[in-house]
Amino acid sequence: MESIKDRYAIVGIGQSPVTLRSGRSELSLALEAVTAAIEDAGLHTKDIDGIMGDHPIRVDAMAIAGALGLRRVGFFIEPEFAGGGVPGGIMHALAGIAAGRAEHVVCYKSLNGASKVTVPGMAFDLAPHENGFTRPFGLLDPAAYAGLAARRHMHEYGTTSRHFGAIAVTCRRHANRNSHAIMHDRPLTLEDHQQSELLADPLRILDRCVDVDGAAACIVTTAERARDLRQRPVYIMAAGQALSPCLARGTKDPTLPENETSLLSRQLFSMAGLTPSDIDVLQICDDFTCYVLMALEDLGFCRKGEGGGFVEGGHLDWPDGKIPLNTSGGNLSEGNLEGFNHIVEGVRQLRGAAQAQVGGAETVLVCGATGTATSGLILRR
Amino acid sequence: MESIKDRYAIVGIGQSPVTLRSGRSELSLALEAVTAAIEDAGLHTKDIDGIMGDHPIRVDAMAIAGALGLRRVGFFIEPEFAGGGVPGGIMHALAGIAAGRAEHVVCYKSLNGASKVTVPGMAFDLAPHENGFTRPFGLLDPAAYAGLAARRHMHEYGTTSRHFGAIAVTCRRHANRNSHAIMHDRPLTLEDHQQSELLADPLRILDRCVDVDGAAACIVTTAERARDLRQRPVYIMAAGQALSPCLARGTKDPTLPENETSLLSRQLFSMAGLTPSDIDVLQICDDFTCYVLMALEDLGFCRKGEGGGFVEGGHLDWPDGKIPLNTSGGNLSEGNLEGFNHIVEGVRQLRGAAQAQVGGAETVLVCGATGTATSGLILRR
Repeated sequence: MESIKDRYAIVGIGQSPVTLRSGRSELSLALEAVTAAIEDAGLHTKDIDGIMGDHPIRVDAMAIAGALGLRRVGFFIEPEFAGGGVPGGIMHALAGIAAGRAEHVVCYKSLNGASKVTVPGMAFDLAPHENGFTRPFGLLDPAAYAGLAARRHMHEYGTTSRHFGAIAVTCRRHANRNSHAIMHDRPLTLEDHQQSELLADPLRILDRCVDVDGAAACIVTTAERARDLRQRPVYIMAAGQALSPCLARGTKDPTLPENETSLLSRQLFSMAGLTPSDIDVLQICDDFTCYVLMALEDLGFCRKGEGGGFVEGGHLDWPDGKIPLNTSGGNLSEGNLEGFNHIVEGVRQLRGAAQAQVGGAETVLVCGATGTATSGLILRR
Repeated sequence: MESIKDRYAIVGIGQSPVTLRSGRSELSLALEAVTAAIEDAGLHTKDIDGIMGDHPIRVDAMAIAGALGLRRVGFFIEPEFAGGGVPGGIMHALAGIAAGRAEHVVCYKSLNGASKVTVPGMAFDLAPHENGFTRPFGLLDPAAYAGLAARRHMHEYGTTSRHFGAIAVTCRRHANRNSHAIMHDRPLTLEDHQQSELLADPLRILDRCVDVDGAAACIVTTAERARDLRQRPVYIMAAGQALSPCLARGTKDPTLPENETSLLSRQLFSMAGLTPSDIDVLQICDDFTCYVLMALEDLGFCRKGEGGGFVEGGHLDWPDGKIPLNTSGGNLSEGNLEGFNHIVEGVRQLRGAAQAQVGGAETVLVCGATGTATSGLILRR
């Protein structure tokens, strides 16, 4: 099998404002992000011949093709798995190009996450064959599942709520430097986190992402084509998906030696020919702080069980930490775009165009949400 | 862009019985079809490293990976668009292989379509931004949309209900030769069709597919790998998807010069280097008879508006007709597996292993449902 390494690139990005009440449809938000990404790439709408879209309950490929009048679309897909699937969607886009079915694929996600309730965790709601065994016992939303995993991690490894809080504080610090973030003007201390309401013991309200209205988009094409376009290309060194046969939807056992994120990690680093120490910026989908901590372990940035110590003391901050995490504020503080914002921010970092720019950033690891089937990318300048 | 022509193959097929009340979960049905396909190919479960699965409300990739204990899955996808998307799912599977993300992709669909009501048309239900403009006016289910398109075709071209009925009768004749078909023992005449209950004027109950419980599966790999496996490979000459910017979900204007099926047709025939006269067997997803008639026009088997005359007089039958259609009985009479059954039957025809075998079949065109984003395949021996 041929490697995809460095053969495809992200050549355009776009993002709508994130707000708590947009007063706009998801289609309108999606079109703002999509047309911005096309413009950013220096392409014309008619160049778009592939669509990696959102779930039909939101803005599907037909809606985008109809609104933009696209007549040449020979590849489209609408991946599931919400936050776990977003980097995987980029992989599907380049697979469509690899199979000769498209040349310029627009990828997007659009949510009325704050002003409507249908959106986050929707896929989570669509698993009756599993829910029947869990709902009667009180596992009613993703937070309840995440809380179980968090408690197990605390029990096994001595992790504390303050460790989870350190991740929330880091993301907030980055959001405070990003004028587009929903939490831009609201500083956060570890004490604020500790005093915030319990959501699903041991998780607090500030351990959970902030649902917003907003959309983000990007354009994927070949490395060859990328060289002719407006922006400096961001090359895809690795793109993968992983699921673990031990995975139950919505949660994970943090003590298992092998899980979807550790399987993903092996794929990505071997494809890219890199190790964790080669990564300059981390973009880890942060629906819940506890899952970011576990992902840091599973991705190999620290050992299993040592995530607590690793995140202490601002070590995910920039410029004083070890490795900067979610530099736009992530789902926790920029606003939850189910991890699509992580890709767009990763591209900005590699262009040197982020508001909370990491000096000299050459590689970015993007990791999808965990506790579900997941996916990831390694990007480079 | 490199052509995919003849570079990938379907090497295994499996199907559960179709019934009206299986008493089994969709997962159980899916596993029966999936394990049969793996066995048919002469592969081991552990060889499977890619999954083209079903919608999460049914049996998603995680469920299959968990049940089979798959540990090497680096590519998975769950396409939308129900019947329109099934051949496109095969395209996604080979795209994943083209991108080097998998070697043996299992593809499947599993429905409790008869014993549960959540299933067919589910994606249809998930478009609130469109439904808000149509539901208040009585467009409550796919039949209502199909009825509008049928009436327009009748008005413009003089098509009659008997023409639609001819398609139902053909599919039933084929089902009568297929002992696995739900309607195997029930002959159907054109008069039966004409006397059946109105469903959505002008469509009658016998213009609609029969919802069943059942599952079907197949395995996609490279042509190279296929040569080492148990079965004679069925090569994929062309695989495409198409959507029209003029498309509204659930219906189509049969007078438009360009629609999703005509766009698809151009893609498929140019990729395969064939014309309609080269096709030996047609497998057209038949949720409604009227859409099959329109697809025959859009695919170029007759001229626009001439579908009525084309389907008269048993011309889609075998051995006396022009070109045999849906030789297992299709969704109309074998049972509605959203078009996955059409792929499995296409492979059987090319192996010479169908119950209603078409003598000397060398090429099969598989076309997804219409009135939505659609997709198709051209397969050969």
